[in-house]
Amino acid sequence: MTTARRDTYTPETLLSVAVQVFIERGYDGTSMEHLSKAAGISKSSIYHHVTGKEELLRRAVSRALDELFGILDEEDARVGSAAGRLEYVVRRMVEVLLAELPYVTLLLRVRGNTGTERWALERRREFDHRVAALLKAAAAEGDVRTDVEVRLATRLVFGMINSIVEWYRPEAAGGRGGAGEREVADAVARLVFGGLRKAS
Amino acid sequence: MTTARRDTYTPETLLSVAVQVFIERGYDGTSMEHLSKAAGISKSSIYHHVTGKEELLRRAVSRALDELFGILDEEDARVGSAAGRLEYVVRRMVEVLLAELPYVTLLLRVRGNTGTERWALERRREFDHRVAALLKAAAAEGDVRTDVEVRLATRLVFGMINSIVEWYRPEAAGGRGGAGEREVADAVARLVFGGLRKAS
Repeated sequence: MTTARRDTYTPETLLSVAVQVFIERGYDGTSMEHLSKAAGISKSSIYHHVTGKEELLRRAVSRALDELFGILDEEDARVGSAAGRLEYVVRRMVEVLLAELPYVTLLLRVRGNTGTERWALERRREFDHRVAALLKAAAAEGDVRTDVEVRLATRLVFGMINSIVEWYRPEAAGGRGGAGEREVADAVARLVFGGLRKAS
Repeated sequence: MTTARRDTYTPETLLSVAVQVFIERGYDGTSMEHLSKAAGISKSSIYHHVTGKEELLRRAVSRALDELFGILDEEDARVGSAAGRLEYVVRRMVEVLLAELPYVTLLLRVRGNTGTERWALERRREFDHRVAALLKAAAAEGDVRTDVEVRLATRLVFGMINSIVEWYRPEAAGGRGGAGEREVADAVARLVFGGLRKAS
């Protein structure tokens, strides 16, 4: 049984287990011992795949960051009015967050005690700046309100989007009143751009 | 020096120190020893004021909850159109969050391992339901969009408001590009009701 499980292990499945443990115990509170137990393989088997827990963290947050930055290279994020591109990016951010929920959750919990964490925070800030620049461009084109400062608006919009990791549970989606991925993405896009007030 | 500090100790100042320690170390990770060191008074002096750390947690989250529920009793939250009352409540929620920042931050981090934490989560849910009911009433009165499900909209609006505790720093407010309390409350009210799109 142990052999069978070990045989099925790939860097990918190890990463997925590590992300769960990091989220549950916090990165600082996770030891190689915890990872070994959760994965059901020996520490030396883990070291066969990676140099240590920091490499696992780096791979995990890289996955989230690559998906997020990838959005900005998509055609609809590059072509058209700034407001249209911004709306596309906001919707895709929600989709990436939901599709890569554990990886994005971990990215959002990074605090900055190690080199990898500081690098991840820096990359997050860079992404925030790219989206803030789009918002600024949309305001300059006259499509977005100018009575809320760009950096503050960006923070609040990211706050709404990122808060989804606190309550969204994929297993509840679609059933028992849980909102599906599409419904959540639509709701965020509507609220971020149109707000609660009924268009009159 | 120690005597002078001890003389100035009141349940209020002890509470304020405890809240800082709870936020930094997490409630589970805080011992009476940590509280004693941070407050600069002996454990027996702390026991003179409270029965233990759980009582400090209860007092701290009660302070945040009392302020939040207090909003719902204010005249502007009780009189007028549901949309007008909702807008008032949203703005006041931001004001309370900023005025009671450490207490609300602690309330939002409560996880539910002890009786006090479960009680706090229950009270938070109750508050959420009260605000959701207001949103539902505003939709019924035709003033709020109906194409976003009420519970989902409530979660996203709370997500935006609650995210403020992650980045707002009172010491930066007003200076060096930091947003002041009034500016943040205005921004949230504008975005929640009108969204980013320029009214045309």
